[in-house]
Amino acid sequence: MSQLYSSMKPTPVLKDELDIVIPTIRNLDFLEMNDINRILGPKSSCISFKDSACRCFGYMVSKKKYIYTIDDDCFVAKDPSGKEINALEQHIKNLLSPSTPHFFNTLYDPYSDGADFVRGYPFSMREGAITAVSHGLWLNVPDYDAPTQLVKPLERNSRKVYLSIQLPILYVDAVMTIPKGTLFPMCGMNLAYDRELIGPAMYFRLMGDGQPIGRYDDMWAGWCVKVICDHMGWGVKTGLPYIWHSKASNPFVNLRKEYNGIFWQEEAIPFFQSVTLPKECDSVQQCYIELAKLVNEKLGKVDPYFIKLADGMVTWIEAWEELNAPKGTETNAPRVTE
Amino acid sequence: MSQLYSSMKPTPVLKDELDIVIPTIRNLDFLEMNDINRILGPKSSCISFKDSACRCFGYMVSKKKYIYTIDDDCFVAKDPSGKEINALEQHIKNLLSPSTPHFFNTLYDPYSDGADFVRGYPFSMREGAITAVSHGLWLNVPDYDAPTQLVKPLERNSRKVYLSIQLPILYVDAVMTIPKGTLFPMCGMNLAYDRELIGPAMYFRLMGDGQPIGRYDDMWAGWCVKVICDHMGWGVKTGLPYIWHSKASNPFVNLRKEYNGIFWQEEAIPFFQSVTLPKECDSVQQCYIELAKLVNEKLGKVDPYFIKLADGMVTWIEAWEELNAPKGTETNAPRVTE
Repeated sequence: MSQLYSSMKPTPVLKDELDIVIPTIRNLDFLEMNDINRILGPKSSCISFKDSACRCFGYMVSKKKYIYTIDDDCFVAKDPSGKEINALEQHIKNLLSPSTPHFFNTLYDPYSDGADFVRGYPFSMREGAITAVSHGLWLNVPDYDAPTQLVKPLERNSRKVYLSIQLPILYVDAVMTIPKGTLFPMCGMNLAYDRELIGPAMYFRLMGDGQPIGRYDDMWAGWCVKVICDHMGWGVKTGLPYIWHSKASNPFVNLRKEYNGIFWQEEAIPFFQSVTLPKECDSVQQCYIELAKLVNEKLGKVDPYFIKLADGMVTWIEAWEELNAPKGTETNAPRVTE
Repeated sequence: MSQLYSSMKPTPVLKDELDIVIPTIRNLDFLEMNDINRILGPKSSCISFKDSACRCFGYMVSKKKYIYTIDDDCFVAKDPSGKEINALEQHIKNLLSPSTPHFFNTLYDPYSDGADFVRGYPFSMREGAITAVSHGLWLNVPDYDAPTQLVKPLERNSRKVYLSIQLPILYVDAVMTIPKGTLFPMCGMNLAYDRELIGPAMYFRLMGDGQPIGRYDDMWAGWCVKVICDHMGWGVKTGLPYIWHSKASNPFVNLRKEYNGIFWQEEAIPFFQSVTLPKECDSVQQCYIELAKLVNEKLGKVDPYFIKLADGMVTWIEAWEELNAPKGTETNAPRVTE
């Protein structure tokens, strides 16, 4: 995190025994694990401990409109010209411009500079949809699963080409909308979203300490988020900005964390692909409670973990509503019906 | 076309009054408008005259497995290093490697060099689907409709950046699969496909001379092709290779050709988005005949043109079957059921 804010002249701070450089940002709240129990009480059961999934506690207690979440081994990347990429700026651009989930634009994001809708793009659809999520990518170490890491230990998402300048070919200069009805693997390494829109669905589920699964926290959130965005008529973008992912995690440790997830996703993905949320669900919270019911009913048969998870999903929403009680106004954007 | 084969030492040939340089390629057939009547007889009514849509006659009479079709104002483009792009090579790579229509891979084509499936991509889906279509893009003049051309007369799909070398930012170094269930605007300017798979659906409809519509030939084919590929379990890719589109066509002439298409696509696209082909349809021909029925039934209400078009679609299939009578073997790949 520190390098991301390097231009902000960070003040080095040692917090407990962690060597974390906290930048001098106004309104910075530093949350610790103890805060989870202190703030949520018995509802803290829905938050993961000793796992990166605990980050969603921060999403819940934040009062900001936009959330940006990155891993601790991610740093500022450079574009092919050698210029440092301002990831936050690109994420905000992605979130503030519309998405195109209902028809594919072959020249990628039609709202970006110098681009537009191509011939044959229906004019009635050019207003686009509200964007809820901006999923950024990674240079250097790609986000691979343990089996792929084991098989391709040396692969890096960059290659030397073009006139002896180091230009990574796989720097793909594009942002695109993931079409409605299509699921994607959402990685929490470099992710931004509109908390007022999709916040209640950004739950990173039960992981890590005492749980039979790891490294599927962001994936779970991604499946739920996509199904709910599709239902609400909102868009999810992927592509730019890139961050520099400095190191690959240990593939042997990852395999131990992942193996249940690898089995279970073969059931979970067809489940999410076939989910249809009732028309009456017109808030993210309602959608999420409905999803929890379906998870219990359909995935509970796969493993008892999913029954516990469905409870966790309900608790998450209860805690969310307690901490984010509407003050006479509904913060969610309305559902867009086609 | 001539420049594309410039490395093949073309022999200049004057054919009629057209100044066309025909390269010395073995097995070259040069078709003229007269050949349409000669070969198809009364069934030539399904082919457009005095319009680029007539090209689909060539697709029908060809005996090749792969078809590549480009416009006459398209030439070899250069990649950001200044190297000439071998468009045919990239199209064949796209067609010979699988597609991923059932789940989105955030690092684009997982089958390209140096890429792979990201964490969270279901292992059971990594075999991918057979690729039927490779849709290439364009540098310099983008494929815009007349209204966009009129509003943005100077826009070019390239910009000078990066260390004062002319690198077009919008050279997006990616190939991707258009997900199942998502329509796209298929442009016939730089398009390759597997004729043995999807050939019977690559009909560029009734256009131009005597017809109330132009510049929607490829779009129509694209909607039909995508719906049928989705039904058959095949993939459609878009992205690389780029060609150099040298000049924009006249926007005023284009507007006259397009205006009915612009209105009608607002009805046609929801129609294609909602089409479900019967399970019994297990060949492209059957799917296409079924589509023709639905076009007559649903779009016939929009304009009598669609009733005539539905007849043309049936005639196209009849002519296709006459010219491509199976000799005891079925050339179509089987439908992939999930």
